[in-house]
Amino acid sequence: MAKKKLNIGLIGKGFMGRAHSLAWANAGRIYDTEFEPVLKYCCGTQLAAAQEFAERQGWEKATDDWRDVTGSSDIDVVDIVAPTYVHSEIAIAAAKAGKHVFCEKPAAVTYAQAKAMAEAANEAGIVHYLNHNYRRVPAVAYAKQLIDEGRIGDIYHWRGAYLQDWVVDPDFPLTWHFKKEMAGGGPLFDLGSHSVDLARYLVGEIGAVTAVQKTFVSERPLPGEGAATFSSGGNASAEKGHVDIDDASFMIAEFENGALGSFDATRFANGRKNWNDFEIYGSKGSLRWNFESMNELYFFDATQPAVEQGFRRISVTSGEHPYAGSWWGPGHVLGYENAFFHAVYDFLRALSGDGKIAPNLNDGAACIKVLEAAIKSNAEKRRVEISEIG
Amino acid sequence: MAKKKLNIGLIGKGFMGRAHSLAWANAGRIYDTEFEPVLKYCCGTQLAAAQEFAERQGWEKATDDWRDVTGSSDIDVVDIVAPTYVHSEIAIAAAKAGKHVFCEKPAAVTYAQAKAMAEAANEAGIVHYLNHNYRRVPAVAYAKQLIDEGRIGDIYHWRGAYLQDWVVDPDFPLTWHFKKEMAGGGPLFDLGSHSVDLARYLVGEIGAVTAVQKTFVSERPLPGEGAATFSSGGNASAEKGHVDIDDASFMIAEFENGALGSFDATRFANGRKNWNDFEIYGSKGSLRWNFESMNELYFFDATQPAVEQGFRRISVTSGEHPYAGSWWGPGHVLGYENAFFHAVYDFLRALSGDGKIAPNLNDGAACIKVLEAAIKSNAEKRRVEISEIG
Amino acid sequence: MAKKKLNIGLIGKGFMGRAHSLAWANAGRIYDTEFEPVLKYCCGTQLAAAQEFAERQGWEKATDDWRDVTGSSDIDVVDIVAPTYVHSEIAIAAAKAGKHVFCEKPAAVTYAQAKAMAEAANEAGIVHYLNHNYRRVPAVAYAKQLIDEGRIGDIYHWRGAYLQDWVVDPDFPLTWHFKKEMAGGGPLFDLGSHSVDLARYLVGEIGAVTAVQKTFVSERPLPGEGAATFSSGGNASAEKGHVDIDDASFMIAEFENGALGSFDATRFANGRKNWNDFEIYGSKGSLRWNFESMNELYFFDATQPAVEQGFRRISVTSGEHPYAGSWWGPGHVLGYENAFFHAVYDFLRALSGDGKIAPNLNDGAACIKVLEAAIKSNAEKRRVEISEIG
Amino acid sequence: MAKKKLNIGLIGKGFMGRAHSLAWANAGRIYDTEFEPVLKYCCGTQLAAAQEFAERQGWEKATDDWRDVTGSSDIDVVDIVAPTYVHSEIAIAAAKAGKHVFCEKPAAVTYAQAKAMAEAANEAGIVHYLNHNYRRVPAVAYAKQLIDEGRIGDIYHWRGAYLQDWVVDPDFPLTWHFKKEMAGGGPLFDLGSHSVDLARYLVGEIGAVTAVQKTFVSERPLPGEGAATFSSGGNASAEKGHVDIDDASFMIAEFENGALGSFDATRFANGRKNWNDFEIYGSKGSLRWNFESMNELYFFDATQPAVEQGFRRISVTSGEHPYAGSWWGPGHVLGYENAFFHAVYDFLRALSGDGKIAPNLNDGAACIKVLEAAIKSNAEKRRVEISEIG
Repeated sequence: MAKKKLNIGLIGKGFMGRAHSLAWANAGRIYDTEFEPVLKYCCGTQLAAAQEFAERQGWEKATDDWRDVTGSSDIDVVDIVAPTYVHSEIAIAAAKAGKHVFCEKPAAVTYAQAKAMAEAANEAGIVHYLNHNYRRVPAVAYAKQLIDEGRIGDIYHWRGAYLQDWVVDPDFPLTWHFKKEMAGGGPLFDLGSHSVDLARYLVGEIGAVTAVQKTFVSERPLPGEGAATFSSGGNASAEKGHVDIDDASFMIAEFENGALGSFDATRFANGRKNWNDFEIYGSKGSLRWNFESMNELYFFDATQPAVEQGFRRISVTSGEHPYAGSWWGPGHVLGYENAFFHAVYDFLRALSGDGKIAPNLNDGAACIKVLEAAIKSNAEKRRVEISEIG
Repeated sequence: MAKKKLNIGLIGKGFMGRAHSLAWANAGRIYDTEFEPVLKYCCGTQLAAAQEFAERQGWEKATDDWRDVTGSSDIDVVDIVAPTYVHSEIAIAAAKAGKHVFCEKPAAVTYAQAKAMAEAANEAGIVHYLNHNYRRVPAVAYAKQLIDEGRIGDIYHWRGAYLQDWVVDPDFPLTWHFKKEMAGGGPLFDLGSHSVDLARYLVGEIGAVTAVQKTFVSERPLPGEGAATFSSGGNASAEKGHVDIDDASFMIAEFENGALGSFDATRFANGRKNWNDFEIYGSKGSLRWNFESMNELYFFDATQPAVEQGFRRISVTSGEHPYAGSWWGPGHVLGYENAFFHAVYDFLRALSGDGKIAPNLNDGAACIKVLEAAIKSNAEKRRVEISEIG
Repeated sequence: MAKKKLNIGLIGKGFMGRAHSLAWANAGRIYDTEFEPVLKYCCGTQLAAAQEFAERQGWEKATDDWRDVTGSSDIDVVDIVAPTYVHSEIAIAAAKAGKHVFCEKPAAVTYAQAKAMAEAANEAGIVHYLNHNYRRVPAVAYAKQLIDEGRIGDIYHWRGAYLQDWVVDPDFPLTWHFKKEMAGGGPLFDLGSHSVDLARYLVGEIGAVTAVQKTFVSERPLPGEGAATFSSGGNASAEKGHVDIDDASFMIAEFENGALGSFDATRFANGRKNWNDFEIYGSKGSLRWNFESMNELYFFDATQPAVEQGFRRISVTSGEHPYAGSWWGPGHVLGYENAFFHAVYDFLRALSGDGKIAPNLNDGAACIKVLEAAIKSNAEKRRVEISEIG
Repeated sequence: MAKKKLNIGLIGKGFMGRAHSLAWANAGRIYDTEFEPVLKYCCGTQLAAAQEFAERQGWEKATDDWRDVTGSSDIDVVDIVAPTYVHSEIAIAAAKAGKHVFCEKPAAVTYAQAKAMAEAANEAGIVHYLNHNYRRVPAVAYAKQLIDEGRIGDIYHWRGAYLQDWVVDPDFPLTWHFKKEMAGGGPLFDLGSHSVDLARYLVGEIGAVTAVQKTFVSERPLPGEGAATFSSGGNASAEKGHVDIDDASFMIAEFENGALGSFDATRFANGRKNWNDFEIYGSKGSLRWNFESMNELYFFDATQPAVEQGFRRISVTSGEHPYAGSWWGPGHVLGYENAFFHAVYDFLRALSGDGKIAPNLNDGAACIKVLEAAIKSNAEKRRVEISEIG
């Protein structure tokens, strides 16, 4: 049976543009779906670079104006990988144009923006997805399954940490990541948003937070020539500018179901590269996962005889595990980009089915609400109820 | 050369009494010291049990009145392993009688008590030691050495967790551990005091804290017949009583040197038995240690070439490592009780030398001050400066 | 600049066919190369299935006769993923037709076959590559770099283990993996060939081996309907057949440079899924790697001060590490299939450059020679020099 | 009830003398036993040093002639910690004098010696014990319990490694450890004897072995002044002598029950300090243990649902675990010396009970038999049946 063509428009490129391109281009090689994604149109702020990107990644054409994409009658899905501060405007335009939206995280730089884009999406009745990719790591999806099956029981604790070290050097330049208006926040937004999304997915809604933020390096050299990337800040200029976001944010969360959680997000943890780590403790069992060994889930089953209990390293790579059955088999580990394939697959399934996929832009807004509560908590040096935001 | 006899009086017995007895009795087998500790006098609340304990552990005589010990002209050192709420009264009496004090942790159930006992000890000019034993695990002592040598640089983060699970069962009875007047607090006092002591030792003084506490099980069966211990609550009766301490306390700390820290203490972490864990992140390196694999220190050296950096598992068991040289050699791991031997050794050295040993009762009071600030922070739902206490 | 088209013909499909297709189809998205691989022609034993595979994986056309591929004037590279026992015939035909050869491992089921195919390739002057993919895991390539830089010094030991458990069930059917004529051997060939390849790469040539083989289940049900795969044997029939290969092969190797090595290969290690593990011990340092956490290399540097030595976990994911710079950045782990991309990339570079790539079919033959020596050692219950083979 | 005094005579001192002294002196503090061990008599080759040792460790008197101890009417138990080559003569004398024997491992330097001492002990009807201490690590004893309960099923594989690195330096002097007549062998005897003992305990008798041995450094400086110890060779002199033992011995074993095993013993594994490691794979489950984290047993239960299987880290420290109940409680780890306490305890229980304790001198002889078969296998470059020895 011939597949239905599904025309994708990608807005933004860089690291995430490449990861998304790979997933759209190859989903059909891995999965049975009703749709054949077509890499139709891509957009970058500089036309020549966008064209080069398009050629390499297989996009049919390129533009430097994202409105060309959202406004194109030819496009079914708008995939947004542009910087966070433009997500909202693009997503709203896409939704109003009836395009489905596939959007990188975090949703936006403020709750107001995030809420607006979620509302626009809901109103338009489109399928919308926010790419907190870690939900789609098989080990994380399997953790969710164990929780849903009651294997963990009532949850007492979430302990989340997302630690990196790429800006420890005080001469790492003042890229957009350090500007509140563009990034929303520092690790609180970039990393903490992932942790909060995972916690909402696995534990439940957060009712109140208490947070403390620190900026260890308050002045950084302005960026010079050359691209600044995740692992390299490009050239720094001699002039310095002010950092107006956090270098580290530690937060205690009280979940609505009574669980007590901690969230430590920092870019100043020397030796931790992409240390996205969580522990969940419940009345019947416990879980531990870390992205750097993403194929392993540690499960403690408190219902076994006490004498033989222990955290069990499950290699979440067998055909019975979520997503893993489409890949290489037991012990054949997956990597970072595979979760993007899973996201595309689930998005295609949502289009074929009931249109539901999580997290979506509503989840994105709920997440930003928690982060804004954290900022308020730090500013006012007190516990803040999530309901105070909004 | 004949050794000087040093007469020890032990007040309290149980788990800690046995650990201390072993250390006093065997120190001379391991170390060269000027003193020969003599197990002179021990005290338990029930005479027959105290006598049985004395016989087994080698104490010359036993009493059921601790004032017999502090008042004995024959005693040089009073070792206090009685429940926390009586530490202060005993320590003050011992100090006033000119006895040196070797005391289990935490110092006391309130800052007022802890301060009073520290002041009495200072005034009396005695040698006093508070047994936060984890400082004397070789791997921890080596961590301190690396920090003091500047290998970690400026410290950005402390991440401490002390997790246990022995009271997850809601039918675990309401032993003294759950009563504020006897224990001071729940895991905040029992476990958090260790973490705060380690953080003060390794990172520095804490300036402010923000804490949230939870009690998951607010009513528990009253204890029935039979001894309640760390790992078994003895028999429970049908009647229930009120828990007035925390089951979990999560705290964010701002150190005076600018570091940002987290402290998660709980007895509701299924699968974690004595999970005393810390991570320290600094400008030049990082450290990680966990008591359950107490002989290993993980060290990340950020001054090595980036391409070959990584956390290094150091087996802290060689002759060059603190304390380890007196034991069995490389890769021959030590256990829990060895740290008590090290404490006795250092205490004997302090008696022979300048009388200084840390942590002492002043440290004990400083630690309780932080814990009281945490309780206040939780009660008032706000950040509390340590200087507000006292 | 327009790229040169490079027409690929794939012979065989299944698990490996899919992995290779993905790599050929996407290499251009990741790497700068002179060539654009074109998925031209694929071959499967059943035409309909081959056509379905072609459609899904993007091959232009399909056949059920591999000679159509080797004989096509349109094909530049023949990629062989068919069962091992046909490798030699196909590779020889391809070489004679002047096609470059990219071949799955092990090279062949006998040394005679492997030698013949290597000779044909050498004679034809083609570029030939044998896909022992693990050499191209960044952590393994980085291990090689450390060894070449002298960081390990003189090597004393190789300890290799390749452990799986997929046939522990005695009712797992008698698929081709259990037939000597089709597979060459059991784990000795399937798994041991990888270990021997890694050892030859990292340590050097093997001079003599001493091996013991065991077959724990000597009769298995014949396969019934349904595909037998790595992780599922399909349906079993009631009839049984004879297993004529090893279920486990343990081997001690004496390397020409004096190192002493062990190789344990088995499919009867319950709990080990794809446990490809090695340790290398040398005069200046040591290394450890395991495929199940493939992004990590453990390095012990014996030239550091003794007191701070320890095995260091290097996350081989940064831009400075082999291959990793083309991917996602520090701490963003890679998975199984990425090594296939690296193989394609290096193969394309060899085509652009001096035509050299390792391992090639000569390496494949050298590897099989060692495996045959192991079989002889087991049969004759004695140490066998590799030079006795051939 | 008053305890019966049990007079101990210790022959040898050093590292092991201290470990044994500690265990004899403190057993009564930990265990309920019928006996009170009395540290009666100790012997060292130099009288002054023996007297100093006696004073420090609490032995009542000292001698420099071991016959004084075996011949004393006052002695009930002879504890032998002298160098291996004198074990046999002392044990035979002790047995003939009707003393019970508690002996360090390995039993002797040859099978003939080991057999003679076992026969003498059997004939005398004494209680005899050979201190392969690792059997009495709680995690190992618990492994045995799981095997005996059928939790592992039929055993397919033993993978044992005992790796150290203390003689990698070619200038480490030629201490007695390098002389065949005194040590019996190198790592094969010192380390391999432990592994073979553990394998016989956990898996069963070995039927045949195939071994390869290497000596990497064949000449070493003769020892100069100063004591040579495990971690330090003392001073080296300028003159060199010949090493006539192995630096590494790798062995494949065929067990009588059909299991296939590997044993890698070496002193040339840089970074491994006391790396006594085993894996056991069976039809129903698997086990892994390593001395350097001696409190942890990894257990894979293949009878659980496949999707949730994994190696489980059991902290073997709870009251339900072997030996652990006498110590500190869950998560409170034990160290090297605790296993010596357990040995003394079991020896005292054997004296009170049926006189049985394992391993005994018969086990010691059985172990040496395997090691001699390994030496023969290496010399003759062929598989050797254990029955060929003797």
